Amino acid sequence: MTGKQLHLNLFIYPDGHHEAAWRHPDSETDRILDITYYQELAQRAEAAKFDAVFFADGPSLAENIQYAARFRLEPITVMTAIVAATERIGVIGTASTTYTEPYNLARQLSSLDHLSKGRAGWNIVTTGAANAALNFGLDAHPLHRDRYARAEEYVEVITKLWDSWEDDAVVADRESGVFADVDKIHRVDHSGRFFKVRGPLNAPRSPQGRPVYVQAGSSEDGRAFAARWAEAIFTAHQTLGSAQEFYADIKQRAQAQGRDPRGLKVLPGISPFIASTAKEAEELHDRFNELTQPEYSLAQLNRLTGVDLSSYDLDGPFPREIIDTDEERSEGSRFQLVLDIVEREDPTLRQLCHRLAGARGHRVVTGTPDQVADTIEEWAEHGAADGFNVMPPWLPGGIEVFIEEVVPILRRRGLFRTEYTGRTLRDHLGLERPASQYAPTHAKESA
Amino acid sequence: MTGKQLHLNLFIYPDGHHEAAWRHPDSETDRILDITYYQELAQRAEAAKFDAVFFADGPSLAENIQYAARFRLEPITVMTAIVAATERIGVIGTASTTYTEPYNLARQLSSLDHLSKGRAGWNIVTTGAANAALNFGLDAHPLHRDRYARAEEYVEVITKLWDSWEDDAVVADRESGVFADVDKIHRVDHSGRFFKVRGPLNAPRSPQGRPVYVQAGSSEDGRAFAARWAEAIFTAHQTLGSAQEFYADIKQRAQAQGRDPRGLKVLPGISPFIASTAKEAEELHDRFNELTQPEYSLAQLNRLTGVDLSSYDLDGPFPREIIDTDEERSEGSRFQLVLDIVEREDPTLRQLCHRLAGARGHRVVTGTPDQVADTIEEWAEHGAADGFNVMPPWLPGGIEVFIEEVVPILRRRGLFRTEYTGRTLRDHLGLERPASQYAPTHAKESA
Repeated sequence: MTGKQLHLNLFIYPDGHHEAAWRHPDSETDRILDITYYQELAQRAEAAKFDAVFFADGPSLAENIQYAARFRLEPITVMTAIVAATERIGVIGTASTTYTEPYNLARQLSSLDHLSKGRAGWNIVTTGAANAALNFGLDAHPLHRDRYARAEEYVEVITKLWDSWEDDAVVADRESGVFADVDKIHRVDHSGRFFKVRGPLNAPRSPQGRPVYVQAGSSEDGRAFAARWAEAIFTAHQTLGSAQEFYADIKQRAQAQGRDPRGLKVLPGISPFIASTAKEAEELHDRFNELTQPEYSLAQLNRLTGVDLSSYDLDGPFPREIIDTDEERSEGSRFQLVLDIVEREDPTLRQLCHRLAGARGHRVVTGTPDQVADTIEEWAEHGAADGFNVMPPWLPGGIEVFIEEVVPILRRRGLFRTEYTGRTLRDHLGLERPASQYAPTHAKESA
Repeated sequence: MTGKQLHLNLFIYPDGHHEAAWRHPDSETDRILDITYYQELAQRAEAAKFDAVFFADGPSLAENIQYAARFRLEPITVMTAIVAATERIGVIGTASTTYTEPYNLARQLSSLDHLSKGRAGWNIVTTGAANAALNFGLDAHPLHRDRYARAEEYVEVITKLWDSWEDDAVVADRESGVFADVDKIHRVDHSGRFFKVRGPLNAPRSPQGRPVYVQAGSSEDGRAFAARWAEAIFTAHQTLGSAQEFYADIKQRAQAQGRDPRGLKVLPGISPFIASTAKEAEELHDRFNELTQPEYSLAQLNRLTGVDLSSYDLDGPFPREIIDTDEERSEGSRFQLVLDIVEREDPTLRQLCHRLAGARGHRVVTGTPDQVADTIEEWAEHGAADGFNVMPPWLPGGIEVFIEEVVPILRRRGLFRTEYTGRTLRDHLGLERPASQYAPTHAKESA
């Protein structure tokens, strides 16, 4: 026991992360448009002292809606409804740098940080789904490298906007009639390749200064971006070795940027099937996989790899010959992960589909509560994780069993808090509150 | 008594609508970033059976933040936090067609309508503040007519998106594995001058079908737009005659579009100073006006008229000679309203500032509860209003006294409900739920 404290997020997918969760009788598919369902999940995670709930997002309809509950309520609204029903837990939501305007997103996340008294996090994505472009006036999805170039400038702009009011800009002196000290409210006057934004933001600086910056890409561009900006990284790894390589690499990159690597938390995804015996856990996993539908699974595989495999025999070997190394496609990090599974396990196409059905490439663990806790501890103690994004295969039961059975073991091993020690998401994650880049003390420190 | 039922919205401005409200000891300026303040106001309005709470918005910082609390939390988040703390009252929020993308706004308002079980309304604006352009990559604010041309196409697109899932598109049949009937989910394939959007939306149709369409422009372009799209209009009038002219005109225009004019509710703004005697009410109003600051008032006047009056004598006559009739400026409806006050009342510059300090051109009434109720009844009974957007000069006291003193009189006169009869904002306003334009029954009816 090293005294290392893990961070745990509950990653809420409407009906659960397993692609067939909606067909399982224990999922509550009829509640996925009911906000109390999400509020209750967040309250449950808060009672268990999780750091945050986490939401994915994308501005287009999944192609395979016919076969699964692949839509969701919009995250800014869902997160707001959750903070209105909770006190301490953080909320991390995905928003795209490719398909939003920085001024608009800056306002909404600032407002969420105010509303929640400092519990907002932003999962920064460039949007992977190519069909999103068609909803925003474009004929084609921008290239991976161009999306990252825009993301880089986007985060620069939005950071300036969040810093544009110094913390003490509001005076509100009724007697003199001075409401704000305008010398402490700064235009950002940004002019770059993608954005031209004058600012300032039209609201005071928020409790956390800025929402927590979370990032989820593990490609080369993604790692470079994360090393500069991310305070937490959500990342997909199938093996301890892969996670260790990523952990060491991203911490080293952050250090090379002059950052304290402890200011960047690495949180792999983990999707647990938990039962009293290892065999029962396997059977539970199998029951979900039996509910999968090839039409859906192959579309999902196509989305992860860019390859259409629908004409191949599901019970034949995975047809390696059709994998090419198209540059644009292979820049996505999930593509390499799928190739690695094929190399390592030589699966049939159906087996590969089942391998990916649980959590789209994130690690699926099956076992007893002790076995799941062992995996978590192993990754945490061997330089692979500062915590985890927990991705329940189905909801709400899949998180209930984790909280009831696994969290107490982690606590007994001294790996997870029994009470919150702070009030903001930055507090929970052990991250500093950044000073405004426009504040004189900050400028002095940087000089 | 005609049995006509009025609609009442509470228009929440952070510290109240009077520009000096923040300086008054009864305003709660220290709570304007505290969400419980807004939740409590909405709960109070809900207890009084108001139709909705209403929020203004604009994506830029007011130029005169030095002298007043002219910032706000972002409306989508505030509305969501309010629906999480209420059961029945509607929420109407302003969002710009000039500075947002229809796909993004469609998602957020759809989500809000789902979360609230059908209580969302959208106040459609083209954004009047010229400095907003500089936060969105533009060198200048688009012209009034171009903003309205974009708004027209925007509403067409977003309506298609909200209609893109037929009401019964979700099947969720666990046995067969069919989640959605994709024949009932429609691409919108819009391609126009301003937007190219494929769709469909990535969420099912919301409880109200579409949020209620509210509109607040009374210019020529604004009236034409409202006649086509608006289901409620928020409008500024200083006199019964002006309000009657507007009411008759907009209803006639709606009818000319083939609409039932009862499907378009006219809701003038009213900002009441209420006291036990008429004299005390005047004194209350005076106390607020004494707290105004010329620097702020003149900037406000400049914003409404486009004219800089800061070099003129505040106690001299209003300098009519400098008003020109610049076409772009005079297309805004508030410009004409200010000119009318000058024509009618021949005020000094200071008097004009005080006339506008209460509610930026909306009607300010001072009087006893009976006198305020008389004004409301007069407008309602003489073809000037279907209801009112109540704009309390300060908060929370300014709405408290209205609810305690005026609402009971309206009830005794049979003008306002004592209980909600429906659950959605459409129910409260007496508006029909629109069918999806893609639904076969709808297509048949239209044929």
